Amino acid sequence: MGRVTVRRRASHLTAESTTTRPETLAVEEPLELRIDGTAITVTMRTPGSDVELAQGFLLTEGVIGGRDDIARVEYCRGAGEDGLNTYNVLDVRLTPGVPMPDVDVTRNFYTTSSCGVCGKAALDAVRLKTRFSPAGDETRVPVDVLTGLPDALREQQKVFASTGGLHAAGLFTAEGEPLVVREDVGRHNAVDKVLGWAVLNDRVPLTGTVLVVSGRASFELVQKAAMAGVPVLAAVSAPSSLAAELADEQGVTLIGFLRGDSMNVYSGAERVVA
Amino acid sequence: MGRVTVRRRASHLTAESTTTRPETLAVEEPLELRIDGTAITVTMRTPGSDVELAQGFLLTEGVIGGRDDIARVEYCRGAGEDGLNTYNVLDVRLTPGVPMPDVDVTRNFYTTSSCGVCGKAALDAVRLKTRFSPAGDETRVPVDVLTGLPDALREQQKVFASTGGLHAAGLFTAEGEPLVVREDVGRHNAVDKVLGWAVLNDRVPLTGTVLVVSGRASFELVQKAAMAGVPVLAAVSAPSSLAAELADEQGVTLIGFLRGDSMNVYSGAERVVA
Repeated sequence: MGRVTVRRRASHLTAESTTTRPETLAVEEPLELRIDGTAITVTMRTPGSDVELAQGFLLTEGVIGGRDDIARVEYCRGAGEDGLNTYNVLDVRLTPGVPMPDVDVTRNFYTTSSCGVCGKAALDAVRLKTRFSPAGDETRVPVDVLTGLPDALREQQKVFASTGGLHAAGLFTAEGEPLVVREDVGRHNAVDKVLGWAVLNDRVPLTGTVLVVSGRASFELVQKAAMAGVPVLAAVSAPSSLAAELADEQGVTLIGFLRGDSMNVYSGAERVVA
Repeated sequence: MGRVTVRRRASHLTAESTTTRPETLAVEEPLELRIDGTAITVTMRTPGSDVELAQGFLLTEGVIGGRDDIARVEYCRGAGEDGLNTYNVLDVRLTPGVPMPDVDVTRNFYTTSSCGVCGKAALDAVRLKTRFSPAGDETRVPVDVLTGLPDALREQQKVFASTGGLHAAGLFTAEGEPLVVREDVGRHNAVDKVLGWAVLNDRVPLTGTVLVVSGRASFELVQKAAMAGVPVLAAVSAPSSLAAELADEQGVTLIGFLRGDSMNVYSGAERVVA
């Protein structure tokens, strides 16, 4: 199984001095995801929680609706040049009756280590259809719960502390109780791992929860929240225009610049209460 | 042509008060890239410099080697529901003799608004072959030139200043002269726009230059640098393990944590001089 960090000698330079010292780097490795043996996508991820990553990806791409749609997940037995399993190829067997996604180029997955459109190769197919619209979710979250979440997320970011190189995503209850936190070189992977945890624990749709991300809120992160039925998405940094538009459409509460004791609410402000 | 920012009313909340005010958001819109009419990829990008984005993407995916490999780039005439051109579909006609890239799923593009593997759907094809290896490039860059680059980049980040939502990439000479700076919701798009500028201006391979990025250095950013012949890649934030490994292989000087008056050099330290 891959490691999450590696040590590597690097030179630390200033105008006055050069010192050589070991630095800790976040591991980035490709993960190939197969469905019933067919390669679907490759994502650059930090090893660990790979099964969650796969399940979260399949959920947020609309391939599965929950745990029962997956019969089995296992690493392929294929080995690298050194004869050892790379643990970088994961094969998912869908439950009989669950349709195999199309894999031709015009309906292909685009995946990423952090951002972008996990969608289809046509503009009008960028928007996926969620089975778990959060539009009717009557969750209410107090302002002071929300302002405490970035610190709660940071406390569990063990690898970031040593590398400075990982994004984090965390799922919390509306009372601010942490459910799960995951880290990855790609922030979309961190979100997929969190949502895959929910799939494994049969918690989808994620009614009554808040998804917190360490960076910005893109279109795709809002889409992932909507696909999992998450009513509130809160980002430490800025949202994009399309993130706000999709949040309107899907009934997701979108919070940005969640820092210190304040935040901006771009959509669904009725869920944020004093 | 799409706008780069939009204004949107948002609620600014603290525990004590709620105010509603207009916020400026970075625009994110899909761009579909076609080659000779066939859809190749969709990326979520900030509109503007779309032709550069397309050319940089094709360069760093190994489809073209320079300006002469492209006969024509134009927006498709297709219109949205309102009858207006969306300017979100770009068609590239390759020069006769330049091979069309494979578009079957096992050799497909994965693109992203900021990170990930712009590669092929198989692990052993993740690494692209560059025509412009920077390995023999004898560029030397003084430490004090490098430490001045983040400020030089920030000075030209006009949209970031208003939205907090854009990544930036900039190309500089070894003396620190800025050649081009581009912003985008996706940092890989910002890099593609910069490298596409170099294609348009017939500056590939980019011998003697430094590419500066506002965020982290992933595998894919090192690959993009190598594909364009850039000898020095400097990131304001952390590199990943695979970024450092690929920099070793490709002869790219990889700098991380370029902040204040210091930096870490992970690969190719001989190009950084006092």
